[in-house]
Amino acid sequence: MSTLTTPRTHQTLTRYQDIRRRTETICAPLEPEDTVVQPIVDVSPPKWHMAHTSWFFETFILSPHLPGYQAFHPRYSFLFNSYYNSVGSRVQRDQRSTLTRPPLRDIYTYRQHVDAHMEQLFQQLPEQELTELLPVLELGLQHEQQHQELLITDIKYILSTNPLLPAFKPRPAPKQATEKTAARFLEVPGGTYKIGFTGEGFCFDNELGVHEVLVEDFEIMNRLVTNGEYLEFMQDGGYSDFRHWLDEGFALVKNDHLEAPLYWVKQDNTWHRFTMHGLEEVDMNEPVCHLSFYEADAYANWAGKRLLTEFEWEAAAQVYPPQSGNFVESELLEPTAADPAATGMQQLYGNLWEWTYSAYHPYPGFTKAPGAIGEYNGKFMLNQMVLRGGSCATPESHIRTTYRNFFHPDKRWQYNGIRLANK
Amino acid sequence: MSTLTTPRTHQTLTRYQDIRRRTETICAPLEPEDTVVQPIVDVSPPKWHMAHTSWFFETFILSPHLPGYQAFHPRYSFLFNSYYNSVGSRVQRDQRSTLTRPPLRDIYTYRQHVDAHMEQLFQQLPEQELTELLPVLELGLQHEQQHQELLITDIKYILSTNPLLPAFKPRPAPKQATEKTAARFLEVPGGTYKIGFTGEGFCFDNELGVHEVLVEDFEIMNRLVTNGEYLEFMQDGGYSDFRHWLDEGFALVKNDHLEAPLYWVKQDNTWHRFTMHGLEEVDMNEPVCHLSFYEADAYANWAGKRLLTEFEWEAAAQVYPPQSGNFVESELLEPTAADPAATGMQQLYGNLWEWTYSAYHPYPGFTKAPGAIGEYNGKFMLNQMVLRGGSCATPESHIRTTYRNFFHPDKRWQYNGIRLANK
Amino acid sequence: MSTLTTPRTHQTLTRYQDIRRRTETICAPLEPEDTVVQPIVDVSPPKWHMAHTSWFFETFILSPHLPGYQAFHPRYSFLFNSYYNSVGSRVQRDQRSTLTRPPLRDIYTYRQHVDAHMEQLFQQLPEQELTELLPVLELGLQHEQQHQELLITDIKYILSTNPLLPAFKPRPAPKQATEKTAARFLEVPGGTYKIGFTGEGFCFDNELGVHEVLVEDFEIMNRLVTNGEYLEFMQDGGYSDFRHWLDEGFALVKNDHLEAPLYWVKQDNTWHRFTMHGLEEVDMNEPVCHLSFYEADAYANWAGKRLLTEFEWEAAAQVYPPQSGNFVESELLEPTAADPAATGMQQLYGNLWEWTYSAYHPYPGFTKAPGAIGEYNGKFMLNQMVLRGGSCATPESHIRTTYRNFFHPDKRWQYNGIRLANK
Amino acid sequence: MSTLTTPRTHQTLTRYQDIRRRTETICAPLEPEDTVVQPIVDVSPPKWHMAHTSWFFETFILSPHLPGYQAFHPRYSFLFNSYYNSVGSRVQRDQRSTLTRPPLRDIYTYRQHVDAHMEQLFQQLPEQELTELLPVLELGLQHEQQHQELLITDIKYILSTNPLLPAFKPRPAPKQATEKTAARFLEVPGGTYKIGFTGEGFCFDNELGVHEVLVEDFEIMNRLVTNGEYLEFMQDGGYSDFRHWLDEGFALVKNDHLEAPLYWVKQDNTWHRFTMHGLEEVDMNEPVCHLSFYEADAYANWAGKRLLTEFEWEAAAQVYPPQSGNFVESELLEPTAADPAATGMQQLYGNLWEWTYSAYHPYPGFTKAPGAIGEYNGKFMLNQMVLRGGSCATPESHIRTTYRNFFHPDKRWQYNGIRLANK
Repeated sequence: MSTLTTPRTHQTLTRYQDIRRRTETICAPLEPEDTVVQPIVDVSPPKWHMAHTSWFFETFILSPHLPGYQAFHPRYSFLFNSYYNSVGSRVQRDQRSTLTRPPLRDIYTYRQHVDAHMEQLFQQLPEQELTELLPVLELGLQHEQQHQELLITDIKYILSTNPLLPAFKPRPAPKQATEKTAARFLEVPGGTYKIGFTGEGFCFDNELGVHEVLVEDFEIMNRLVTNGEYLEFMQDGGYSDFRHWLDEGFALVKNDHLEAPLYWVKQDNTWHRFTMHGLEEVDMNEPVCHLSFYEADAYANWAGKRLLTEFEWEAAAQVYPPQSGNFVESELLEPTAADPAATGMQQLYGNLWEWTYSAYHPYPGFTKAPGAIGEYNGKFMLNQMVLRGGSCATPESHIRTTYRNFFHPDKRWQYNGIRLANK
Repeated sequence: MSTLTTPRTHQTLTRYQDIRRRTETICAPLEPEDTVVQPIVDVSPPKWHMAHTSWFFETFILSPHLPGYQAFHPRYSFLFNSYYNSVGSRVQRDQRSTLTRPPLRDIYTYRQHVDAHMEQLFQQLPEQELTELLPVLELGLQHEQQHQELLITDIKYILSTNPLLPAFKPRPAPKQATEKTAARFLEVPGGTYKIGFTGEGFCFDNELGVHEVLVEDFEIMNRLVTNGEYLEFMQDGGYSDFRHWLDEGFALVKNDHLEAPLYWVKQDNTWHRFTMHGLEEVDMNEPVCHLSFYEADAYANWAGKRLLTEFEWEAAAQVYPPQSGNFVESELLEPTAADPAATGMQQLYGNLWEWTYSAYHPYPGFTKAPGAIGEYNGKFMLNQMVLRGGSCATPESHIRTTYRNFFHPDKRWQYNGIRLANK
Repeated sequence: MSTLTTPRTHQTLTRYQDIRRRTETICAPLEPEDTVVQPIVDVSPPKWHMAHTSWFFETFILSPHLPGYQAFHPRYSFLFNSYYNSVGSRVQRDQRSTLTRPPLRDIYTYRQHVDAHMEQLFQQLPEQELTELLPVLELGLQHEQQHQELLITDIKYILSTNPLLPAFKPRPAPKQATEKTAARFLEVPGGTYKIGFTGEGFCFDNELGVHEVLVEDFEIMNRLVTNGEYLEFMQDGGYSDFRHWLDEGFALVKNDHLEAPLYWVKQDNTWHRFTMHGLEEVDMNEPVCHLSFYEADAYANWAGKRLLTEFEWEAAAQVYPPQSGNFVESELLEPTAADPAATGMQQLYGNLWEWTYSAYHPYPGFTKAPGAIGEYNGKFMLNQMVLRGGSCATPESHIRTTYRNFFHPDKRWQYNGIRLANK
Repeated sequence: MSTLTTPRTHQTLTRYQDIRRRTETICAPLEPEDTVVQPIVDVSPPKWHMAHTSWFFETFILSPHLPGYQAFHPRYSFLFNSYYNSVGSRVQRDQRSTLTRPPLRDIYTYRQHVDAHMEQLFQQLPEQELTELLPVLELGLQHEQQHQELLITDIKYILSTNPLLPAFKPRPAPKQATEKTAARFLEVPGGTYKIGFTGEGFCFDNELGVHEVLVEDFEIMNRLVTNGEYLEFMQDGGYSDFRHWLDEGFALVKNDHLEAPLYWVKQDNTWHRFTMHGLEEVDMNEPVCHLSFYEADAYANWAGKRLLTEFEWEAAAQVYPPQSGNFVESELLEPTAADPAATGMQQLYGNLWEWTYSAYHPYPGFTKAPGAIGEYNGKFMLNQMVLRGGSCATPESHIRTTYRNFFHPDKRWQYNGIRLANK
């Protein structure tokens, strides 16, 4: 039995511990009651996220690979499977709030149980076997990071339904005054671009199938569209003029009586928005957030511009490589204004996911992995739109220029925003 | 400031304290997460019940009558109003699970705050004023007792939706073997009966409007219908033979795929039922429980009998005055078998509410009280059926022979059962 | 083959022919397309009514009793059964508009086929057998009369959904100016009244089970409530003040945005109503029509009065026996104003069905007939309210003081109105 | 006033008359009742199609361009507008069956009125003006051809809901025995293909924005997938094995209990399908038809192949230019088997629309036309999938290799089929 782990596995263990701890840090401010409700089917109870991410390691690593491992609880496999048909039956997605038991403290114990056995696995397994496990272990970590982002967006939604509009946390630092950054359009030359992931390190299967795509000359906006710009659209009657809208988008607007982004509330004749720090006045220089694809597209039409395709976005990121951004590590959990002093491309990474006018379809040659892992991405490749670039709820180590996020075009509870293209 | 209270007000204070404490005793075994969910609109979160009953005293007694009283929280009036339009706007009934905050511990503090001020009111108010408050105070206590029963039925439903089927509490004593009690029909002579409440003490407004009703000769079953008898109906194809059913009942059966009472589960070819003590095998001598009116009526038709009207039930209770019964004080929270040695009427009080074939309509001369209290009963007098006699979840001090409970005919989550009449 | 029929059977044959012809007279102004649509599940396509009434005679008389009778079409039994489970499977109620075929002309041929064979049956069957058939034959005729009324109400609804608001027929004579009749309340002495049908001739099973009911002294309004009176309620904010309404009624008002009776339309700031003669200005002296029970009850509460029970209505009809009224034979198909010169009771018969505050329940001793006929009434005895007195769409020969019509309390498309009681 | 029309306008007039007459020929076998119902929202009443296509010419040509033209009826603009917000309000899409009036004969008169005035316009307008009108006139004709196809698919659906399963027409000639054609995969070389319409003549705006697309080497099946092949998938448990399905597709399968293509019915243990000629036994050599995208995709996955993208389909049509096919002119209205003797590509044109794995999005540089015509295509460019090649319900003169048809992926009532690609 190995007692010495190599630097690489040691590094992985440290990463495992960091990422797992991060989930618990996110959930620390929650009341037990916050962790069980499911106000809409899109939102999962935080307790469920905490358990499901542990279930992933238990199911795909500990049970098959740690000799003598006993599942923490014989029914958790049923309770905390998300959508893996291969793994068996499960609680229906819209029934997750039935899980008032196990109580939150049991889920913390479950997490500790899984973590202790994962450490044991690192201690115990021969280097060779550990190395073979690295891909699925890495997938588990990436998976947990995805659920960290969902935890944040779901917590925000849960708190927003409460008539008390409680803040999740105070701002880490007092809010500073912001300034307007002029909108400019930067050129991206047309040509053949290589699309998809080619480097080392982790990527999801949906980024594979690297292929060349012909892109024509276009221009890309230097920053995200701001609240102030979007308010002009609203004040110009944008929500009531069908000409800007896709037909299904306009039907949604009328049916749901949409008239502003999600979380916007008019108080004393001033627009406020519910944020993770409570209700705040809308800052006109910050990027507009929590929009459906339909709203992003309608805004672009109104502005005489258009959204980018995901291929154009990836080409632009090759021409203007993004550096860092406002990610979850800032602990702000809300987008920030662009820098008026900067001259180049801004906000490609972080702040807000950018809706593209590309359906989430398989790249050429896409193949699903065998077994349950094959259900991770492929079966969702219809009726959803690709978003790029990560948000203020995304872990920085989780993003890549080739990363393809995807949501149905009517979804507003994610940190989504708008970037425009000019032909 | 008065320090001497009269025996009567002292007695009322003691009663207040007892009833209030009882609510907290009921909720003691709950996890915080159990207290916030709302799996169906009929069920309210236990935390909401705990707060709403306190809101009743705060709104109708403390705020108007205790000098200098400050509401515990300025928003609680909005959060915990149930259906009193007169008192202002409120959280929509189907949105009560949004109240993850205030957390459970705050609700306990709220209860203590209200209780302390109620005690202060008893100390402080002149005897004359206290006496004038007694009717609404009594209404508040009766109201809290009604919510105690709802707490129990709602907790049972909440736990039943959990795949783990957790017990609420262990049985207070090991279950004893039961014996069958022969069914017999006891005569009730026809004639003019006085219906409605006439004595001293409390009654609800829906019991007033005492009036005479002509009842014809009939016979009434000596006990409730048992699980064993109901199983015969099931085994005879009762759920699939339209001839036994009201048309809307049969539509419900087909639509919801009903084939047994609520909480019945077949395991290893044996019928079990989810009880407050976990999953148990069905005891054939115990009364059948958690049925809709439609099922009760279909069973009666199959058996060649019928249900009683509420007037017949009240006449029978005059002829065979009920003594005591299996009420919430037994702490069993489930119905018990009849006594095979007894020769007379059994189970009129307690065990299960008995569906009658009477619509919940106003008695002649019914008038609503002025103001918010007038919304207590009158506005629900349509499309619901009257039930009589109380259940194992009812406080014994809460019941009367003239008491009219009422539910829509499709409701199954209450402790409802069947008693037959013979023409 | 008998060539001599007795006067009684001859009379029945003549009555059969009259009633059958009447159905076709009603439908004569319809386009084929009018006869197939089903805009709401309550409304059946006129073609279906025409076929279903013929199916009744074919199924319950011709097939079992006319030797050698061949069904007109082997599939019609499936197509045109309404709700008789005993007779076999059938087109689902909400799927009746799928029957674009058989075309209307085939249904006329079907009717002729059934009529010719019914005449043959009258010629051919021995007197004794005919006499035995009279009860079910009479039921068939009463059934056809009920469908004649439904034909009229369903045609009105169908035409009302058409944006062209087409008139069904012109008025038989130009509309005359009307005058207001003062509202007065007539006394009905309390006491024991015999309720239910006792005389000779036909009645439905739901009128049987004659029994005595104790009624207290009350007063009854001398006519129906008028459009003018109801408009006062509307103008006083009646639809937005919860205090007048049953809880479910107020929910309906808010959900369906009710603000006036069905078919009322405001044009050029004046209330109009869609009538069988097209859109007409509301006549303030005519009875208000096409209301739900909830609206009738809310109006009564607002007016400080109440609705009658069905027992009070029947008692009043014993004290003030109704003579004739505005029935379908007037061919007006809309209600008419009361006579200001009359001093006694008016409009008890005809004009509009009067909502009572009585649930449609079985009378004591009610028993269902054996076989399919037993499904006629009994299985609907829940959640519906009794209406009394007939309407301008009812055949005069179809009504009795003991006649119990019934609809769910939210239904507005029947010719329903309001009569008040005073305590 | 011109009395001489040029050959080109004369030719256009003849084409106008031919296409308009064709619509009436399609509807000739219908009963009036067939022309008014709307069993699902996707299906429009045939009468509505007949009127709406006339409304198009009246609205966009006669009213603005024929001096002195009076609209046939002042309300038809409201009744028969489909989705043009620019033209004003309209009957809601799901309310088209309310139009029992105007009766069918009025719609024929409306068509004659429009046709007579269109002829007058051809006679009367100066050549110059006529030439300027040609684009919108051509659009009107293409539009009418699209509705001819919808008429056929909607009539099929309407008749299929009728329990009598009536045939629309007899087969034009007795059905011949068929033979199996071996499946082969033909190569399409990778490279840059020019996508979109470039030639002369008409195309829709969604075909414009010609652009180059990089396509990799692939192989394309030589014919459509047959009923026999699809039955193997069914018999292999295809509908119950989640691994073949997109997640939303499998949810649809379970929710709607799908187990075969639309219109398939098992009788006496043999699969039949409802066709325009009545119920027929499934011919195993004919192409499988009336499938959703989900079923097409699941079949492809099961077969170890995939669907083509729309770009691959258009590339293949450049490599293997389609000639003719089974179009509406054959009057068969059902697909036909491939020719076993043929060696090359078959069925690219006609028979069935082929689902592609391409979302219906705008081509680069797509711009909407100004005014109402701009609502023709652009606003539907989301959540729908592209289909290529035309069907047995498509007029032959209506199709092109660049033609982009589009439907939501769950739609089954169109003549849709499957063609496979091999990587």
